[in-house]
Amino acid sequence: MKAAYYTGDQSFTIREDQPKEPQAGEARVKIAYCGICGTDLHVYHGAMDARVTTNRVVGHECSGIVDALGEGVEGFEVGDQVVIRPLASCGECPACKKGYTHVCQKLKFLGLDTEGAFQQAWTLPANTLHKVPADMRLDFAALIEPTAVACHDVARANIQPGEDVLVIGGGPIGLLVAMVAKQAGGNVVVSEVSEYRLGIAEKLGFKTLNAMKVNVAEEVWKMTGDKGAEVVFEVSATQPGVDTMTEAAAVRGRIVMVGIIGGRKPEVDLFKFFWRELQLLGARVYEAADYEKAIELIVSGAIDCETLITDIQELEDITKAFQALDGNATAMKSLIKCS
Amino acid sequence: MKAAYYTGDQSFTIREDQPKEPQAGEARVKIAYCGICGTDLHVYHGAMDARVTTNRVVGHECSGIVDALGEGVEGFEVGDQVVIRPLASCGECPACKKGYTHVCQKLKFLGLDTEGAFQQAWTLPANTLHKVPADMRLDFAALIEPTAVACHDVARANIQPGEDVLVIGGGPIGLLVAMVAKQAGGNVVVSEVSEYRLGIAEKLGFKTLNAMKVNVAEEVWKMTGDKGAEVVFEVSATQPGVDTMTEAAAVRGRIVMVGIIGGRKPEVDLFKFFWRELQLLGARVYEAADYEKAIELIVSGAIDCETLITDIQELEDITKAFQALDGNATAMKSLIKCS
Repeated sequence: MKAAYYTGDQSFTIREDQPKEPQAGEARVKIAYCGICGTDLHVYHGAMDARVTTNRVVGHECSGIVDALGEGVEGFEVGDQVVIRPLASCGECPACKKGYTHVCQKLKFLGLDTEGAFQQAWTLPANTLHKVPADMRLDFAALIEPTAVACHDVARANIQPGEDVLVIGGGPIGLLVAMVAKQAGGNVVVSEVSEYRLGIAEKLGFKTLNAMKVNVAEEVWKMTGDKGAEVVFEVSATQPGVDTMTEAAAVRGRIVMVGIIGGRKPEVDLFKFFWRELQLLGARVYEAADYEKAIELIVSGAIDCETLITDIQELEDITKAFQALDGNATAMKSLIKCS
Repeated sequence: MKAAYYTGDQSFTIREDQPKEPQAGEARVKIAYCGICGTDLHVYHGAMDARVTTNRVVGHECSGIVDALGEGVEGFEVGDQVVIRPLASCGECPACKKGYTHVCQKLKFLGLDTEGAFQQAWTLPANTLHKVPADMRLDFAALIEPTAVACHDVARANIQPGEDVLVIGGGPIGLLVAMVAKQAGGNVVVSEVSEYRLGIAEKLGFKTLNAMKVNVAEEVWKMTGDKGAEVVFEVSATQPGVDTMTEAAAVRGRIVMVGIIGGRKPEVDLFKFFWRELQLLGARVYEAADYEKAIELIVSGAIDCETLITDIQELEDITKAFQALDGNATAMKSLIKCS
């Protein structure tokens, strides 16, 4: 079978590997599609070489079909359509003991800390599998992982029907957050700087604000009758986004930090946290319930996968797919067709 | 009656005023004691002249006795011992309509935005009064307002019995937060830089960490079996305190922002919010329930008022009292005896 190894310096190398036999508790999944995540782009640029190494199959936003099962795996059969929740928790640390296994203090993220999905068959712990309907389109199913991220973010915010919601950043995750927040009853507006992405957000039915042209926070206060947004999702991972998140939030507003800002500490208006009793909620990956919710939303058609998937490339063309996506203002989600 | 006007430039002027007759819905309170708050020190230094003006009676941490009642005031009688919750909400803004009257979008803080308690009789809306027991020491009762701040902070954190709690900053509010958090079942450690304050914290029965000598976050992780503190109160209003708050917090830890950082935006490690799914909670003043809790804690002796009150001066000596408190590393709470 073919496997795409990240081999450093913005390159992937396709190798012919022997599919691994699943051991006890493991499953082998024939990977159908795997999306390219922003994190994979960081890997591609070498920014995560220390963690990922320069000889690893990465990828984690995948769908596939169960190909073989190790001893003791229950609830799945060969041929089942599945997606993978790519987390391995230690089960022993204080966080795991409290039930926060998705933020395990020694969490391994499959496809970064271990091998991943940009290959034709992936052998991995069976407890990461979620079944999806037999008739589900597997390209759409590859969006379940990022949709589960959005479901987790929205669950952290505990959106109540009718609440005003601002999503700062209209990339793939931002738009998924917007769609899931709308499903939760939120009255969502999306702020973005790219005209292309603003167009997609509008096509998806969202009110939009162009952060290059208007003061987003001021507009939000006007739109909400001098109240502000009860919920803000900061998805841009930028200092202007971090400024806007506190400015736009209502008294007692909840801000979910979705964008990952590594390497530097942004300036945060802590005075506004005091003045308006704001709340900031960190959010990381997902829990099993978020996956079930994401499956439900995609199966029901509540997530417009057709609009989000802007490119599909063959596994052999993975380097080309990364090149095409990199810095491309008119791309949303690129999938790799693995087999 | 005597009233102490803040008249700018680190000075107060004592004037002879006519006690005001309470109008409908108002009460006149003969002020017994009024504590000097950190905010009053900011006023004294001229930092709040734009808001406060330079011709105002300030002060809000007070106790007293009902001296006269306006029409329609129920539940109080002349002679009742009372404390004052110095907030005036508009009742009309979106925050008020949601029930968050203490963070009203047009909140007036009595003693800053209006006249205050550094006078012998204060006429003000009767809905700000809370009755305290007839035999309560009124010097102790003057600590109810800052204790209510601490009760509000602890309520925001929703401390569960047995949780590890770090309080960063061991001034009057920090120590009150520590005492209230301990009453809520928290296992509290206090971090401070002043040896004097560390000594007070130890006298009050707390474990302490000298932030000048040890890495507080590292110590907290060691003390908690590699778990971190479930709850952190940032009371220092300093960049090192803000750094420590994220470093010391456990996975899913709640950080309450108690210190007020105005004028500049500190750098905040938002990556740790992501990595550990931290939560930051802004906290401002108090609600009625926080006052009732504070009264209960002080009446029961759970708050060591004797240790916290380090100075009492006559109203005529208010400027001297501010001078004595200002930058004094061996002072905790200074009270002004108003009548």
